[in-house]
Amino acid sequence: MTAPHSLLVTGTIGIDTVETPSARAERVLGGSAAYFAAAASRLAPVRLVGVVGDDFPADHRRRLEGLGPVDLLGLETRVGAKTFAWGGKYLLNMNERETLFTELGVVADAPPRVPAAFADSGLVFLGNTHPAVQAGLLDQVPNRTLAVADTMDLWINVAHDELVHLLSKVDGIVLNDSEAAHLTGERNAISAGRRILGYGPKFAVVKKGEHGAVLVHRDGVAVVPAFPAEEDMVVDPTGAGDTFAGGFMAHLARTGRTDLEALQTALSWGTVMASFTIGAFSLDGVAKATAADLEARYRLFARHARV
Amino acid sequence: MTAPHSLLVTGTIGIDTVETPSARAERVLGGSAAYFAAAASRLAPVRLVGVVGDDFPADHRRRLEGLGPVDLLGLETRVGAKTFAWGGKYLLNMNERETLFTELGVVADAPPRVPAAFADSGLVFLGNTHPAVQAGLLDQVPNRTLAVADTMDLWINVAHDELVHLLSKVDGIVLNDSEAAHLTGERNAISAGRRILGYGPKFAVVKKGEHGAVLVHRDGVAVVPAFPAEEDMVVDPTGAGDTFAGGFMAHLARTGRTDLEALQTALSWGTVMASFTIGAFSLDGVAKATAADLEARYRLFARHARV
Repeated sequence: MTAPHSLLVTGTIGIDTVETPSARAERVLGGSAAYFAAAASRLAPVRLVGVVGDDFPADHRRRLEGLGPVDLLGLETRVGAKTFAWGGKYLLNMNERETLFTELGVVADAPPRVPAAFADSGLVFLGNTHPAVQAGLLDQVPNRTLAVADTMDLWINVAHDELVHLLSKVDGIVLNDSEAAHLTGERNAISAGRRILGYGPKFAVVKKGEHGAVLVHRDGVAVVPAFPAEEDMVVDPTGAGDTFAGGFMAHLARTGRTDLEALQTALSWGTVMASFTIGAFSLDGVAKATAADLEARYRLFARHARV
Repeated sequence: MTAPHSLLVTGTIGIDTVETPSARAERVLGGSAAYFAAAASRLAPVRLVGVVGDDFPADHRRRLEGLGPVDLLGLETRVGAKTFAWGGKYLLNMNERETLFTELGVVADAPPRVPAAFADSGLVFLGNTHPAVQAGLLDQVPNRTLAVADTMDLWINVAHDELVHLLSKVDGIVLNDSEAAHLTGERNAISAGRRILGYGPKFAVVKKGEHGAVLVHRDGVAVVPAFPAEEDMVVDPTGAGDTFAGGFMAHLARTGRTDLEALQTALSWGTVMASFTIGAFSLDGVAKATAADLEARYRLFARHARV
């Protein structure tokens, strides 16, 4: 593996229970790093850093091992601790959800460490967690060429200064439109992204769910619609954002490019990955798609979204 | 003028008073047909059908005459009647507005007639009004090759059956996402568009404002983002939808094509026209742009929205 282009992801490995208006999935494999790795590994090798408890089901571990080029050297199993678990319920329109429970388990304890063998990674994606933890993980990858972080509303509220510090250390940030508005006070996604650049990153990706995403970069902007999916194509939206990030980062890793043009194409690959994820529970949508399925979906998206 | 490709628009010619958080425009030229014609005439000749009162300011008439290839033969001036007037106020985020007053004036009386010389028009755009009036105007253009209608929430509420009848007579409909949801009960724009095709049209364009538009066609779908505009680029959103429709229809008129591929490119021309409209009050944004400005904006949009 050539280290400058190798892709590292840090984030949660979890056990999800998901209810939708028409179906239910009980204790399936989830978590930001699992979804990210499932998508990214379709395009490029991935190094995963995360921690689970000793209750982590053997089936879920086999599922991660079976994803393909995902190096699990950084997956720590902590004895006497519980794996992160989350339960959520989607409302009728599939765009709103309520969290039924969050059992932090091992995520509430000390964060994982980046193994020495991963310290030479080139591209780093920091899945959503406390920004001080993200910064600590980032420091363990000193030779990185591109670091991108996810975040959420909670940290804007309770760890604003740590988040601002993190923004000064990363090259890019990925966040929802409501989070971008919350962080900057700008409702317009492009204005919000522009403000975020003021904190230090070279670019911000503002995700708008069914309305696509906006990339605000020092060198210009790019907009991408979501894949045109009818409501009955959506089985479970969980993980759409994480697989978007996985497709996005993996396209950069495999091309070895991080310029605006490459980032723009990466947005489309993120969109394609997310379109598979929402079509099934857990990692099934993106993990089961063949390389030919991915290529065909990309071409279909390019045709639908041609301007 | 070759009649099969000639473009007719029916709609209001009005006097608008617009307040935004930072400026105010008093009794400027507006109305759906005026905005449509200002945009469409940048790409193709337009035949305008509408009616004003004898209070219609000479300046506004000169403005219409100065738009370029707009044939005003169908602009009736009704003696003793008042021109349609509208007043609106945009709230801080420029995405919400309240109507301050609507003086229907001449629009409450008998609708205009299509002049005999316009009866051979090929493409017809029916600006928003009572669907029975739209149907009556459409009947006066018997050799049309493509008819597209705009509508609004009011008619879905008070003239539902007439609207459904109109949908059985037109080839396409252009409406907002909230209107499409209201008409069909489907919140998802593509699902809503698909439902609308069940009423008869070949296609539906569902406009999502700052999130772009979706085209649902018997032969497939297309999605287009909005032009990436920061909030401070938006001077006055009035007429954005009408100029979108003008750019859309005029691209079809000038190419003589109405297939899915042409409709998809037409969406982008609509987007480009709307991006000029929001940058100034009244017709100024789209009317003052040079042909070179239009081409440059189109290329810029294609670069921003490349997938």
